[in-house]
Amino acid sequence: MDEAAGSGGFHSERRGVEQALVDQCSSTAYSLAKSTFAAAKSLGISIVGVDGGFANVINVGGVRIAITSDGIGTKAEVAERVGKYDTLGFDLVAMVADDLVAVGAEPFALSNVIDADRLDVAVVEAMMRGLASAASASGLVVTGGEIAALGRRVGGHGLGAHVNWCATALGLIPEGREAISGQSVRAGDVVVALQNEGLRSNGLTLARSILETAFGTSWHEAPNAGRAWGERLLTPSVVYAPAVCELLRSGVPIHGVAHVTGGGIPANLGRILVGRGVGAVLDGLFPPDAWVAELARLGSVSPFEAYGQWNMGNGMLLVLPGCDADRAVSALASARVASRVAGNIVQGGEIAVDARAWGMGVVRYRVE
Amino acid sequence: MDEAAGSGGFHSERRGVEQALVDQCSSTAYSLAKSTFAAAKSLGISIVGVDGGFANVINVGGVRIAITSDGIGTKAEVAERVGKYDTLGFDLVAMVADDLVAVGAEPFALSNVIDADRLDVAVVEAMMRGLASAASASGLVVTGGEIAALGRRVGGHGLGAHVNWCATALGLIPEGREAISGQSVRAGDVVVALQNEGLRSNGLTLARSILETAFGTSWHEAPNAGRAWGERLLTPSVVYAPAVCELLRSGVPIHGVAHVTGGGIPANLGRILVGRGVGAVLDGLFPPDAWVAELARLGSVSPFEAYGQWNMGNGMLLVLPGCDADRAVSALASARVASRVAGNIVQGGEIAVDARAWGMGVVRYRVE
Repeated sequence: MDEAAGSGGFHSERRGVEQALVDQCSSTAYSLAKSTFAAAKSLGISIVGVDGGFANVINVGGVRIAITSDGIGTKAEVAERVGKYDTLGFDLVAMVADDLVAVGAEPFALSNVIDADRLDVAVVEAMMRGLASAASASGLVVTGGEIAALGRRVGGHGLGAHVNWCATALGLIPEGREAISGQSVRAGDVVVALQNEGLRSNGLTLARSILETAFGTSWHEAPNAGRAWGERLLTPSVVYAPAVCELLRSGVPIHGVAHVTGGGIPANLGRILVGRGVGAVLDGLFPPDAWVAELARLGSVSPFEAYGQWNMGNGMLLVLPGCDADRAVSALASARVASRVAGNIVQGGEIAVDARAWGMGVVRYRVE
Repeated sequence: MDEAAGSGGFHSERRGVEQALVDQCSSTAYSLAKSTFAAAKSLGISIVGVDGGFANVINVGGVRIAITSDGIGTKAEVAERVGKYDTLGFDLVAMVADDLVAVGAEPFALSNVIDADRLDVAVVEAMMRGLASAASASGLVVTGGEIAALGRRVGGHGLGAHVNWCATALGLIPEGREAISGQSVRAGDVVVALQNEGLRSNGLTLARSILETAFGTSWHEAPNAGRAWGERLLTPSVVYAPAVCELLRSGVPIHGVAHVTGGGIPANLGRILVGRGVGAVLDGLFPPDAWVAELARLGSVSPFEAYGQWNMGNGMLLVLPGCDADRAVSALASARVASRVAGNIVQGGEIAVDARAWGMGVVRYRVE
């Protein structure tokens, strides 16, 4: 439901209504999905997954496999505008692999579906080349997939071929490792933020809408500090999974992982805090990219709304015991991911984002 | 690539070009996917899958898991026209579960992605209700999925919400069972056909195009023998997997399985025969539904083209030793799937479909 969260134009009132719709669709879908959970018992298969988790976990004959699906949403339109399709694979791998590692699973396989209005070999080649690079670099096998030519059921920008792209990925929870659910998160834990450049694959609808209002229909060509806005928005996602897998293997106890996707920090950190009587004070986050801050300014997006839509420079949050924080930060650095202690878990039911250092004040959310 | 195969209007010349494009996109995508096959070795994971198989098989710590992705293609438009969304789940489950059983795997889990232009709770509810029914009846757990609101990137018929729908499913190859690849298919084997009503989720683009030419833009309301054409095309798919799983468990040796999807009998039976120096004589197939035959007549679709686009009443073909044929047919009957001996595997490189009994002559294809 990531893109859905950002599909509303600027008016927070309208977005409130849309968020309610998103939530209603999600919960309807999930409660019907849950009605199937007894189905596979005859094969000795059971669902271990937790409600609200970033991925579900299935026990298949003693092997625990995590599974998740996601897509790149409307980021495909940015690729169509810029005419560059070979970075989208990094977004697709990041969306699914980082949801898997958020439950403590090591991603190992991915199957993808490309929906196109019409087939264009060069576009498919560029997409799959990027996907293969991103997957190989992250330890995933691309098992295959489906390319469907759907005619006018798929649309987009310009006269070229248009594509929607999603994937389902699998991860393995190694023997002896507990799945991460946030259950062991407690007041006093620290929050380590993993740095991110760009929007990953979330909140693109809002971003595009702002830029179109500001610069007109060819907004992607408008300049921003020496680059075009199209390029900015196309910034490929970092895949955190390999670095976090190394951390998990090193034995650092990770109590909770929030992959900061649609709904930003409050929605995704909230998922692992809710119902535990805790909140967070985040006073050491990475600042947003200059161009993301500029985007918020252009669209008169309040800090409250910005942190509720975009990752704002922090693509993943790890919750772990304070005594392990330094070890975690240096292990992540060895894996070439910049991170820092960004705050603490506290008693109560509030997430406070201290963004005063970059002029956005202190933003407060209820954990829910 | 199922729908792509049917996206060409009537002219076989044009469809020839499109088929070449489909093949080029598929082989480009698959060769890039294969470049990742070494990626996951560090986890003790390896790809067992065979080129051209209906699903890939991954060995995960000794557990063999088959994986496949597919979508319902443009059948969603038929649902939009008829205003009925709760049977599409049977099509979605059939597309993926029956690809899994075609490699000898028992389907156990499915994750789905709904791309919508805008969210409509009633539509999502109907889709997921159908999916949950179909999945439970077939022994699959719906682990969850993604609902993405993609605005104008998704289109369709009429003013309601439009949806594209795909899924990835997993199957287990039980210990001691060999994956089915067609490797043991030999001349002298018999072909058992499983009866099918309707088009499943393939060749819908051609069907819609014929009906629009014949009856205009509201073709779905045009009558056909007491039903509307929209209802005919919406006929839900039979899921064969549970019946075939029972057959596999009973110990009947199945040498090859062709799930008759896009490309019809020649493309899908061809997948398991190619490179083995064998062909097939199919002189006992089920006849097509009267309305599918009428569709071919309306569109001046030749028998050669019809059997290369649609399943023509035979949704799955099993290849097995002649001495096991009766046992197979009666086991399938117990599982409430009508089947019959439909022909034999022969030396050579030709698939001959004898359709004289329903006035379509003998149609011959090269195995390729």
